[in-house]
Amino acid sequence: MVQAVALPRNELGIEAAVGILKQKFGDRLQTGQAIREQHGHTTTWIENQSPDAVVFPHSTEEVSEIVKTCATHKVPVIAFGTGTSLEGHVNAPAGGISVDLTQMNKVLAVNPGDLDCVVQPGVTREDLNTHLRDQGLFFPIDPGANASLGGMAATRASGTNAVRYGTMKDNVLSLEVVMPDGQIIRTGHRAKKSSAGYDLTRLLIGAEGTLGIITELTLRLQGIPEAITSARCSFPSVDAACQAVMMTIQYGVPVARIELLDEMSVQAANAYSGLSLPETPLLLLEFHGSENGAVEQSETFNQIAEEFGGTDFAATSTTEERNKLWQARHDMYWASLQLRPGARGISTDVCVPISRLAECVTATQDKARELGLMAPVVGHVGDGNFHSLLLIDMENADEVSKADQFVGWLNDLAISMEGTCTGEHGIGQGKQPYLVKELGPAVKYMTAIKKALDPDNIMNPGKILSNT
Amino acid sequence: MVQAVALPRNELGIEAAVGILKQKFGDRLQTGQAIREQHGHTTTWIENQSPDAVVFPHSTEEVSEIVKTCATHKVPVIAFGTGTSLEGHVNAPAGGISVDLTQMNKVLAVNPGDLDCVVQPGVTREDLNTHLRDQGLFFPIDPGANASLGGMAATRASGTNAVRYGTMKDNVLSLEVVMPDGQIIRTGHRAKKSSAGYDLTRLLIGAEGTLGIITELTLRLQGIPEAITSARCSFPSVDAACQAVMMTIQYGVPVARIELLDEMSVQAANAYSGLSLPETPLLLLEFHGSENGAVEQSETFNQIAEEFGGTDFAATSTTEERNKLWQARHDMYWASLQLRPGARGISTDVCVPISRLAECVTATQDKARELGLMAPVVGHVGDGNFHSLLLIDMENADEVSKADQFVGWLNDLAISMEGTCTGEHGIGQGKQPYLVKELGPAVKYMTAIKKALDPDNIMNPGKILSNT
Repeated sequence: MVQAVALPRNELGIEAAVGILKQKFGDRLQTGQAIREQHGHTTTWIENQSPDAVVFPHSTEEVSEIVKTCATHKVPVIAFGTGTSLEGHVNAPAGGISVDLTQMNKVLAVNPGDLDCVVQPGVTREDLNTHLRDQGLFFPIDPGANASLGGMAATRASGTNAVRYGTMKDNVLSLEVVMPDGQIIRTGHRAKKSSAGYDLTRLLIGAEGTLGIITELTLRLQGIPEAITSARCSFPSVDAACQAVMMTIQYGVPVARIELLDEMSVQAANAYSGLSLPETPLLLLEFHGSENGAVEQSETFNQIAEEFGGTDFAATSTTEERNKLWQARHDMYWASLQLRPGARGISTDVCVPISRLAECVTATQDKARELGLMAPVVGHVGDGNFHSLLLIDMENADEVSKADQFVGWLNDLAISMEGTCTGEHGIGQGKQPYLVKELGPAVKYMTAIKKALDPDNIMNPGKILSNT
Repeated sequence: MVQAVALPRNELGIEAAVGILKQKFGDRLQTGQAIREQHGHTTTWIENQSPDAVVFPHSTEEVSEIVKTCATHKVPVIAFGTGTSLEGHVNAPAGGISVDLTQMNKVLAVNPGDLDCVVQPGVTREDLNTHLRDQGLFFPIDPGANASLGGMAATRASGTNAVRYGTMKDNVLSLEVVMPDGQIIRTGHRAKKSSAGYDLTRLLIGAEGTLGIITELTLRLQGIPEAITSARCSFPSVDAACQAVMMTIQYGVPVARIELLDEMSVQAANAYSGLSLPETPLLLLEFHGSENGAVEQSETFNQIAEEFGGTDFAATSTTEERNKLWQARHDMYWASLQLRPGARGISTDVCVPISRLAECVTATQDKARELGLMAPVVGHVGDGNFHSLLLIDMENADEVSKADQFVGWLNDLAISMEGTCTGEHGIGQGKQPYLVKELGPAVKYMTAIKKALDPDNIMNPGKILSNT
């Protein structure tokens, strides 16, 4: 495990707050070791820092009551969704109360005429899409994991559909939030756009629970397209694949998904998902539109791909074949782990201008080879975002050190290419030095905002900003 | 004129700052009455509150120097673009320095492969699009006026293309900003998405110059579509037109523009632009796509329109005819004024969920009739946003009072329909009480942010937040 910084604990305050909340919540407040560890669980290599208690509220008012109690006693409050975040977001470096929102999981309203809905934060994206399907609607953001919508907003998540539908910041109309003093606010209503004051919606999205707890989301929905066509195409090199992506986007093809798997990822997918794809860089695509439109997009892409040496192009509109292809993509994390059983997977998350993408991916592959690390690459290449999944033997100190060096090198490279150290995973505990490298003096103003809204630093302390 | 609140002036500080800046900027600092009045000009009915001096910087460093001087002497700094804002944004209620950014008007970089560009804040949207045209690119946000891009970001502007391409918040990748202490920051770089810390980009967009001065913008661009088709269609009622809009969007037609003109607006357009449109509610549309795609969209819309009693459908792909139609739409402000020569035009700007739009527009027309006010309506109806343009004899106190009553009534109505008092014009001086009605306790946290970043309240004081 990589050690996480521990922060000073307010023992007396924690004891008082846990006692008060236990009285109020009874069995809905748990202090057993297993449940506490589960709520400090990090999916990568950052050590577990468990909260002192886990509480399961059922309403916004209950969340407000929890926060007010914690504010009074200056005790940390850490919002918890499904625990799928990747940078230590749910860790409790100063202890405190984990607020598990999974029991706030109701879809409160669906407005088909307005293409919006109102949900509690514990609703997962898959549950929402199941709920919406009969009405011909869907919520497009798909980060892979079946994350909660509150957590997805808190980390400014995106995923495979972002190239067409944007990220969480683009698909949340407004939020209800419990602020650090326990006050319940709304950041907006159901208008499709607004110029009414500071954009608190976007400030809270991506704040990783450090400025408030999201208790309700009003989401923008999409109609399920008349036609969906999936396609795959193999390329002689990462560069050729990236050139095809860039041309496709410049050409205005409104591609819904365009994902890159490098050679090693294709090998993993073949082995894990029983496919027999050519083991060269691969693009997986999805086109949404009318019957004619989806076909036209697919054909246009095929023409472009051929210009860049694309081979083995195959398109399909049948649901079964589509699902098989995308299931393989979604299983890439597990498939990659099978390349090296027993290894831990550590995901990087850089995003660069698309014109620098091929150079960045290729340099990343070379660097991994140079350091003797296994690191298959998958990428949301329409956005210039890719993940190199390091497969690390955590018992091997030299390898862990090399992996740490690799991660730092890659973040620096992305920043030097006018990119970012995190396209969609967030800063959490893991990337704080890179946030400073990336945005420099801007971080001072983030800190000023944090101090203004949360002067006692009770909301998810030790995340994003190292000095709060 | 409607009186604007005057704020206490720091006479000594202003005198000192103007003196220092005059030494530095020479002829690029002006204090003549005409130029000062022009920079406190409001396009609507709010009185002019002129700044004490107008300065014309040429670089970010010069803006930083101006702000540092004003920070030292606690003197207001008001950013000025083209002066086309509509809620008193450039007024100087406490005097101070107007920073006219029109000489910072360079396109610094265009990156066709990444579909982005970097511009100074004084570049206007028309100048940018002229610059981009040869490269097959365009910037889609079109608020009607040929506004500066810095000003458009500051007011979170949008306009006719927002239904497809979003608003300024969706089309700015990052900003360079001079903060209230004179520090220059970047809020991001050129990655298409990022989860790196608080979203200062979106916080600054729509902050109306109250948190900093935008000195550079990195913008997302679009490829000029292969085909553009325009269409118009008349409807028996506003309700029928709105039903057709809602169905078109639900059906997933990626319409690029869908604008409503009510009966009175059509009359105005016919008279001013020499058209002979049926004088019933009208939709103007634009479809972007491939040759086939644009035609298919247009045909799909026509079928939907027929279901709702649409008549006189006409589509055109010739540039000349398209331009004529859209020129008429862009000239609506002037055309409407001609309905009542000598009157002043006062624009409302509510935005409601689209399912409430017909009800809201119809109630607005009824209310105007009840009060004896002329108020043609145009709307960006794909977003649920519309403008009722009051044509007011400013010499008639009773009429001005009724207009004031009408504006308040309409803002309240929109808020009661889960909408907003401003879809795209901003709060400025004019809408502060409605911001509080709309967002209640959230305004307290906006104020906390303002105080944290600008403790001496020098950045565009008296705007958005009434108590700063």
